[in-house]
Amino acid sequence: MRNPDEIAQEGDPPAEALDHETRTVESDHLALRLWLRVFSCTSMIETDLRRRLRQGFDCTLPRFDLLAQLDRHPEGLKMRDLSRRLMVTGGNITGLTDKLVDEGLVERCGDPRDRRVYTIRLTNAGRRLFQKMARSHEQWVIELFNDLEQQDKVQLFELLGTLKSRLRTRSETVR
Amino acid sequence: MRNPDEIAQEGDPPAEALDHETRTVESDHLALRLWLRVFSCTSMIETDLRRRLRQGFDCTLPRFDLLAQLDRHPEGLKMRDLSRRLMVTGGNITGLTDKLVDEGLVERCGDPRDRRVYTIRLTNAGRRLFQKMARSHEQWVIELFNDLEQQDKVQLFELLGTLKSRLRTRSETVR
Repeated sequence: MRNPDEIAQEGDPPAEALDHETRTVESDHLALRLWLRVFSCTSMIETDLRRRLRQGFDCTLPRFDLLAQLDRHPEGLKMRDLSRRLMVTGGNITGLTDKLVDEGLVERCGDPRDRRVYTIRLTNAGRRLFQKMARSHEQWVIELFNDLEQQDKVQLFELLGTLKSRLRTRSETVR
Repeated sequence: MRNPDEIAQEGDPPAEALDHETRTVESDHLALRLWLRVFSCTSMIETDLRRRLRQGFDCTLPRFDLLAQLDRHPEGLKMRDLSRRLMVTGGNITGLTDKLVDEGLVERCGDPRDRRVYTIRLTNAGRRLFQKMARSHEQWVIELFNDLEQQDKVQLFELLGTLKSRLRTRSETVR
């Protein structure tokens, strides 16, 4: 779902584009309507967060995600692990990383035990910038869910937890 | 969220990549944890559907979405309207459409009232293929949600309905 393609971030899609649920008709099975509703909500929130990241920090979502992963791993991550965590192709990660290195936000560190491997980690400047963005990001998310009653949030959280664990069990069975 | 970039469909990301929820820590605000859980579920489902569309029909998700929009509009859609509905850049839509025209699944029709405008619509072959894919797609979605109790599905559907209408009101206020 997460789109590593930065092109797609230029210009916000209009509201109706986000509403994939309009694709369904009354007779459709509940599961299909449910899926399109999950998808619509995710699209609406993600579009809003993309716009705010761009407007507030001139930052794309893949860039934010990459910095977030590095922030969680102060010891650094190998390119391969970074790619795996970010679900984007190696090429995109490399391009993004090169840019962040040029900007002094990220650094490459050699592994003394293996000269062929290097890890990527945040510089102090990168960490400071990310933490500033993360605080804003959290505030935006809080705002977006603000109109939902606390008990609805808790219930939604629980139900999605159930869905997630079922999906995970299913995917492990398939693999 | 929907990724118009077909490159991203090569190779399935591993399970841990889909779980953006691991990014949170216990102390994070409920809204943030809720958002990452919505996002994780959407990613997991979308990745599964992408894989099945590719394996079953050699079809990408943007292609499926484009055909779905045309199926809902038997009278045809203008390129501009199609783009708006699909949230992808005009360039991507044009490329996809050209390919579908070459394959005989979609046709361009001139508007007799305005020579500069043409609409895109499904051919009979395109409609037959899409309907076959749509039936499979619905079955896959039903399967994915199958492990959830009916009452949980209904409740989730209601809660997401509330969230969606709040998000829409918010986005209309901002605009």
